[in-house]
Amino acid sequence: MKTIQIYDTTLRDGAQGEGVSFSLFDKLQIAKRLDEIGVDVIEGGYPLSNEKDADFFRKIAGESLSHAVVTAFGMTRRRGMSPAEDPGMQALLRAETAACTIVGKTWDYHVLEVLRVSLDENVAMIAETIEYLVAQGRRVFYDAEHFFDGWRANPTYAASTIRAAAQAGAELVVCCDTNGGTLPDELTAILGQAQAALAETRVGVGIHCHNDCELAVANSLAAVDAGAVQVQGTINGIGERCGNADLISIIANLALKKKGYRVLREGSLEHLTELSRFVYETANFNLRPGQPFVGQSAFAHKGGMHVHAVARAADTYEHIAPEKVGNERRILVSELSGRSNIASATAKFRLDQDRAVQERILDEVVKLENRGYQFEAAEASFDLLVRRCAGSFRPHFKRLKYHVEVGSHEDGSVVTEGTVKVQVGDSVRHEVSEGDGPVNALDGALRKALGDLFPKLRSMRLVDYKVRVVNSEAGTAARIRVSIESADDHDLWGTIGVSENIIEASWLALVDAIEYKLHKDEDAVAAGKG
Amino acid sequence: MKTIQIYDTTLRDGAQGEGVSFSLFDKLQIAKRLDEIGVDVIEGGYPLSNEKDADFFRKIAGESLSHAVVTAFGMTRRRGMSPAEDPGMQALLRAETAACTIVGKTWDYHVLEVLRVSLDENVAMIAETIEYLVAQGRRVFYDAEHFFDGWRANPTYAASTIRAAAQAGAELVVCCDTNGGTLPDELTAILGQAQAALAETRVGVGIHCHNDCELAVANSLAAVDAGAVQVQGTINGIGERCGNADLISIIANLALKKKGYRVLREGSLEHLTELSRFVYETANFNLRPGQPFVGQSAFAHKGGMHVHAVARAADTYEHIAPEKVGNERRILVSELSGRSNIASATAKFRLDQDRAVQERILDEVVKLENRGYQFEAAEASFDLLVRRCAGSFRPHFKRLKYHVEVGSHEDGSVVTEGTVKVQVGDSVRHEVSEGDGPVNALDGALRKALGDLFPKLRSMRLVDYKVRVVNSEAGTAARIRVSIESADDHDLWGTIGVSENIIEASWLALVDAIEYKLHKDEDAVAAGKG
Repeated sequence: MKTIQIYDTTLRDGAQGEGVSFSLFDKLQIAKRLDEIGVDVIEGGYPLSNEKDADFFRKIAGESLSHAVVTAFGMTRRRGMSPAEDPGMQALLRAETAACTIVGKTWDYHVLEVLRVSLDENVAMIAETIEYLVAQGRRVFYDAEHFFDGWRANPTYAASTIRAAAQAGAELVVCCDTNGGTLPDELTAILGQAQAALAETRVGVGIHCHNDCELAVANSLAAVDAGAVQVQGTINGIGERCGNADLISIIANLALKKKGYRVLREGSLEHLTELSRFVYETANFNLRPGQPFVGQSAFAHKGGMHVHAVARAADTYEHIAPEKVGNERRILVSELSGRSNIASATAKFRLDQDRAVQERILDEVVKLENRGYQFEAAEASFDLLVRRCAGSFRPHFKRLKYHVEVGSHEDGSVVTEGTVKVQVGDSVRHEVSEGDGPVNALDGALRKALGDLFPKLRSMRLVDYKVRVVNSEAGTAARIRVSIESADDHDLWGTIGVSENIIEASWLALVDAIEYKLHKDEDAVAAGKG
Repeated sequence: MKTIQIYDTTLRDGAQGEGVSFSLFDKLQIAKRLDEIGVDVIEGGYPLSNEKDADFFRKIAGESLSHAVVTAFGMTRRRGMSPAEDPGMQALLRAETAACTIVGKTWDYHVLEVLRVSLDENVAMIAETIEYLVAQGRRVFYDAEHFFDGWRANPTYAASTIRAAAQAGAELVVCCDTNGGTLPDELTAILGQAQAALAETRVGVGIHCHNDCELAVANSLAAVDAGAVQVQGTINGIGERCGNADLISIIANLALKKKGYRVLREGSLEHLTELSRFVYETANFNLRPGQPFVGQSAFAHKGGMHVHAVARAADTYEHIAPEKVGNERRILVSELSGRSNIASATAKFRLDQDRAVQERILDEVVKLENRGYQFEAAEASFDLLVRRCAGSFRPHFKRLKYHVEVGSHEDGSVVTEGTVKVQVGDSVRHEVSEGDGPVNALDGALRKALGDLFPKLRSMRLVDYKVRVVNSEAGTAARIRVSIESADDHDLWGTIGVSENIIEASWLALVDAIEYKLHKDEDAVAAGKG
């Protein structure tokens, strides 16, 4: 078994991605998670580029990481000065990390056209920078930028840059497919030549891929087969343009699918899904449902035939057991899916043998889907629909009416007020609340009306709120689909509302969220778990 | 040059994807687009499974496609009956397509455990089904399901199933990696053995991959190198679980990156981006910004260093010219990006040399980003910000106040009313409008107040409306980010508003959308294009 080093650059190259912006707190949290899962090297940032990255290195030094080496990123020294004079080198040293990662130019075209220095000066910049940092006691990873483009254009020059890095004391030469344009065959061939060029230095190679041809994972795996001992990438593949190589897929493939490699530590793999979602959450990105291994849809079955087969033998339509990466199987409800899915989804109510109820559910799902509903991410609303069709739904309150007002004044202030009128048993409650916005005000008024009767509602909170315009067939008005995610101390559940009016759609989703919470808690009490 | 057949299954396997639901009209529109771009085979659906697919085949027969062959999907006949008796075969024949695609079992485990027939009966089912359809004058593509798993488990049996298909008259044997679990090396090796097994029948092979290991594109390309003459996939890789192989990336790689292959027709490639976005729009999916080749971020540059280099020579950070696939370069504005980006983004205002204005813009961007703004998808709001910092913003109206009311009555009806008070010159206008929802009502009132003064507003419409909760640092209230996309007959533009209140955030984005439209039209008049 050969151990492959996992090098994470989510905090530096990942942060270059469109829409990505990590706070200092975010960066520290992510670094700790990466360490927990056993990532070998964490690239924390570019201390010269901004104060937040410099702060990160000060703070992370105080954390006792269990395994990971932290590295600070920088460039080769500027032209015509010694490393000691270069503000970039000083920023790197102030980061006080055990390792530094230095990026340098491999491609003659870049040296002459972008950097605008001579080919020899570029080689000197690489060598002197690395020598200087090694002399200061740092481990140095050398990122050879545009490695494959450079090798294609001028292999002799490209080889001289990486040999200079290796001879100057770099621990590893990382071959970067910076523009993401290299195909696996060519990458394998060039990597072989690069290793031959480095043979006498005994310095190994790593790989750093981008996904511009949708080949970053394949290229990273091909590089490992060709001898690379370190793989650089980001969690979820976030990064500039089409992103970096996704470490999630690379780790899962190396550990579960390929033979002969060891990555991370024992037991890490089951935390991959959790890590992926944590990074999305921290970056404030939506999850990518179809993401390999860890996506919510990665083991979701919709086609009736597949569901039927999976019920008989899971490996018929699953290439690995979802638990291995901390993910889970899901059976989706949809008009396409037919009775097999409804049966699986209704098994918990012991309705899987009741054909009449199943027909009613299927009819209702088709009718609502035609109106813009999607139950695939609104399992709590589907749960209530099943209860209604089975006759076991007991509404805890009757909605009489609601009203929302939002007004801005000439001084710019905005006031929001919501009122709700509900009936519980014989008692009519009419309450009013202000709020940050209309949904918050309605939620406040509803809790005021129901809170003393149902004290468990206090543990419930709104986690996420999403709005989508459902493009309708030409000629009819567009509908708004609101999805709400709620949580209490034990569970997370999604509800949905659709209407031409965003407030009405939000109200429907909100009422479902509360009804689901009340039903769920009663079920738990009935089962003796409450 | 070897021609590779492109086989699209967006309408059948793609429709199995979570959240995908095509109307009959959608399916016809997509099929016509696929034909226009030169796709060779279009799999229209599974006529037995639902009425919508059966309708599709009736309707598409009336369209005169320029090139594509339409195929209907079905399974091998049921056990213990002749093909003529099988309702699936009758549904296929009623589709009256030139070709049929028949899926059959390759994996002995599936035959015995899922299908529950003998191994011999499965071979007979394959052979008799294909013979029957060929006798009815159909071209038949044979999809060998779980081909690679089957071959791994029992190569002799797997070979006997595809030989039976070929001998029965199938035009092509398509090797399906149904569970998406096969790696490129193994896929290449098995494909070689499969072709050897088929050698005497002179029937070729195709490939059908799924993306469960993030290797569907790499596997499809490896299969072509190993001899496959047809590639099956879906536009944007939509499909069950992690999706099918993305034809967009496969086509672009075969045409632009690999050597020796020809796909689609001359001039098709420049329409790839348009096709990708059309399919997302029709499926009502959000675009995937980082999608290789066609994503909005695929050629977007954010890192200050990259922007600087791209300004000097575009191919320094672009593996292909974006125009080749109908995409375009974008320079992103963000706190990370520094002055190079602001300079590029402000070049159209001829402000790229004005350091003081650029400093003001950068300060403003950083301040707003900290409050939850994101200008990367709101270029019109950024345009107005630049005008404000440069002193060239002339507001067309002054917002005095607005007010929105939404109320549901006890009969379930919902009433929405919006009022706005604005000032244009010395004239104060106070207007009221009902609407489908609060934003629509405010929009209506605003148009009533401004429409006679600015008649060009009539050509403007709201295209998309998105809402995102911006998770704020612990302790402060969550903010709501509203993005609005607007269009007139010439342009599409995005604006943004952020507030704790969804109505206020919508109002800010709406006002920006209208101000941008008015500024843009005046600029066009000034430039003599109005």
